[in-house]
Amino acid sequence: MAVNLSAPSAASLHPVPGVSIGVAEANVRKANRKDLTVFLLEPGASVGGVFTQNRFCAAPVQVCREHLASGDIRALVINTGNANAGTGEDGLVRARQTCIAAARLLNLAPEQVLPFSTGVIMEPLPVDRIEKGLPAAIDDAQPQHWLRAAEGIMTTDTIAKAFSRQVQVDGVTVTVTGISKGAGMIRPNMATMLGFLATDAQVDARLLPALAFELAEGSFNRATVDGDTSTNDSFIVIASNKAKHAKITSLDTPAGQALKGAMLEVARLLAQAIVRDGEGATKFITVRVEGGKTGAECRQVAYAIAHSPLVKTAFFASDPNLGRILAAVGYAGITDLDQTKIDLYLDDVHVAVGGGRNPSYREEDGQRVMKQSEITVRVVLGRGNAADQVWTCDFSHDYVSINADYRS
Amino acid sequence: MAVNLSAPSAASLHPVPGVSIGVAEANVRKANRKDLTVFLLEPGASVGGVFTQNRFCAAPVQVCREHLASGDIRALVINTGNANAGTGEDGLVRARQTCIAAARLLNLAPEQVLPFSTGVIMEPLPVDRIEKGLPAAIDDAQPQHWLRAAEGIMTTDTIAKAFSRQVQVDGVTVTVTGISKGAGMIRPNMATMLGFLATDAQVDARLLPALAFELAEGSFNRATVDGDTSTNDSFIVIASNKAKHAKITSLDTPAGQALKGAMLEVARLLAQAIVRDGEGATKFITVRVEGGKTGAECRQVAYAIAHSPLVKTAFFASDPNLGRILAAVGYAGITDLDQTKIDLYLDDVHVAVGGGRNPSYREEDGQRVMKQSEITVRVVLGRGNAADQVWTCDFSHDYVSINADYRS
Repeated sequence: MAVNLSAPSAASLHPVPGVSIGVAEANVRKANRKDLTVFLLEPGASVGGVFTQNRFCAAPVQVCREHLASGDIRALVINTGNANAGTGEDGLVRARQTCIAAARLLNLAPEQVLPFSTGVIMEPLPVDRIEKGLPAAIDDAQPQHWLRAAEGIMTTDTIAKAFSRQVQVDGVTVTVTGISKGAGMIRPNMATMLGFLATDAQVDARLLPALAFELAEGSFNRATVDGDTSTNDSFIVIASNKAKHAKITSLDTPAGQALKGAMLEVARLLAQAIVRDGEGATKFITVRVEGGKTGAECRQVAYAIAHSPLVKTAFFASDPNLGRILAAVGYAGITDLDQTKIDLYLDDVHVAVGGGRNPSYREEDGQRVMKQSEITVRVVLGRGNAADQVWTCDFSHDYVSINADYRS
Repeated sequence: MAVNLSAPSAASLHPVPGVSIGVAEANVRKANRKDLTVFLLEPGASVGGVFTQNRFCAAPVQVCREHLASGDIRALVINTGNANAGTGEDGLVRARQTCIAAARLLNLAPEQVLPFSTGVIMEPLPVDRIEKGLPAAIDDAQPQHWLRAAEGIMTTDTIAKAFSRQVQVDGVTVTVTGISKGAGMIRPNMATMLGFLATDAQVDARLLPALAFELAEGSFNRATVDGDTSTNDSFIVIASNKAKHAKITSLDTPAGQALKGAMLEVARLLAQAIVRDGEGATKFITVRVEGGKTGAECRQVAYAIAHSPLVKTAFFASDPNLGRILAAVGYAGITDLDQTKIDLYLDDVHVAVGGGRNPSYREEDGQRVMKQSEITVRVVLGRGNAADQVWTCDFSHDYVSINADYRS
């Protein structure tokens, strides 16, 4: 059960002019399953992307990087069921075959197609099935198919993830709509498993890489379920450039800020949705670290807390076993940390002061917060003025069950 | 159930001349439980220790470091039930009170006593109960009480951990006997939760700190259960100097090598016993990384694998989902890693070659190894000649149950 996350309605998802989406059943791994999704972009769209920093990056990630560099992207092809990762040279060939097949059907060059795969690692991609499924996916393409796409890219997700916002840019209403997927192997480093965000706003193509990076930094790169950075993380930002306002040539203008704000809001909702649907999650936890010397050290401490199996199981049990949080702060790797300056809060409850238990802290107050489904852990390091936060979930029996059974 | 680990017999544990041990019930946290252990050392013993690198180190760890610096240690006092960590200045006062109380009963200076605590974090140490329990523990002291001590320091351990060896040093038989405890919050960094190793060999007191460090590096510092470095890790090495051989003044002499070899063997067995008894463990896994540029990068990769919840749950399920291991290699943080040079073995089965699936690998071979209770994962990085290994266990439903219920 995802934490405070309900399925999106198709009506809540505004189509993005210039972007059509189609879904088909290609039997990639299992029959009777929508496992192949295509995005078709009208001419003139700009695309930016950020990808996993895992050195074992999947074949489609390598091909995406190449194709994005050559520009003028017109189609995205996404399969579930098989990640085409840990597949060596053969995997690269198969990712390219996917692009060639789609390009032939769409009368494009293969470099104009971006391939994405998610699913089991280290098994050969059944590219013949993808080729056979592509005509049906392309025939299905419609601007209003965002919900179908959100469903089409799910793997262990229990719920589809899609959000949409509209915002005024230069007096013109523009749309931002996005989808994401992912529930395990989630500690995005540059991007999440898969996230796609599109707007019809007009944005200078040269801004797209920086925009994608900044959006990922403020959203997917702050989410972690299990600390496992995937081989396939990909986050793609599309501007179809159909809206009738003056083209945005800088993100620092009022128009640029308005658009970026709306895109960041959707990206955050998508990233948080992945954590809310984290494998076995029963709680959504924000770990905020303040008073650090740098943002990087705040994140270092926040991730140590967010990845501690002991902290995560205590959240699952609603047990205010807060020493486990202090222990994680201590081993986070800040060698000159002064434990006597550290304060800890659970929501509004001041648990530890100066590195020790707050004399006025009462166990029942900690217990009250721990029973909530949304909890903010706040650590104050007392070293400086930097702050940052990450989002995570608890660690339950279901996490073990899901991951012990995923392939079998 | 601990993995291939049985309870030691009292008869298998050789007493160490010059070392007596007593145990008592002090009701530190629960009644009817042996929770207070004392080691009494005859005059002339040398003691070295290594302690947690967690910046939130517990009060007793701070006091131990001070007292070891002043030398001439004559007693160790160990309580379970309360870690006296995250307790600030008040915790330091209580750790010192423990030493003062023991010193008064034994006619020593407080600086001659080392305090150790393990158990719940961030609760005040009931030092009054420890004071009341000390006379009974001291009265109980006998050289042959090693098994009682191993039992007396257990917390979530399911089985006592104690090993003993005898070795010839300069034609004289000397004894090495040790105990350890720990099952969760185990990723020792300088030492494990608690480990005590004693020999009657004569060793120059100046060698003890280096000896303790080298032994920890070859044993406890290669063990991890959940990646959580404790606030209380302490590993103590005692030489009672009672044996009649010529004093060892260098570890590089034949006598020094013989003694160190025996001590390392016992320290490794103690460290591996902690992993075998890891919370919820059903399998004992050696992660060996070869072909690295440095030992440090080999350990970095080995820990990424050993800490991945996805890898650990796959071991629990006996599922050869080996892509998860490659993914962990990829995100371990070696930025110039070339994935096309990586080979992966499960015991003797060659799973991946050049970063991709080995064409001759058959799933049933991987399955056969994964079903074993002892498994070696071997990763060859193809970058150099360094190698290192860590020991870990799998991640089961019982880990979640144990840690969700520990305090309640």
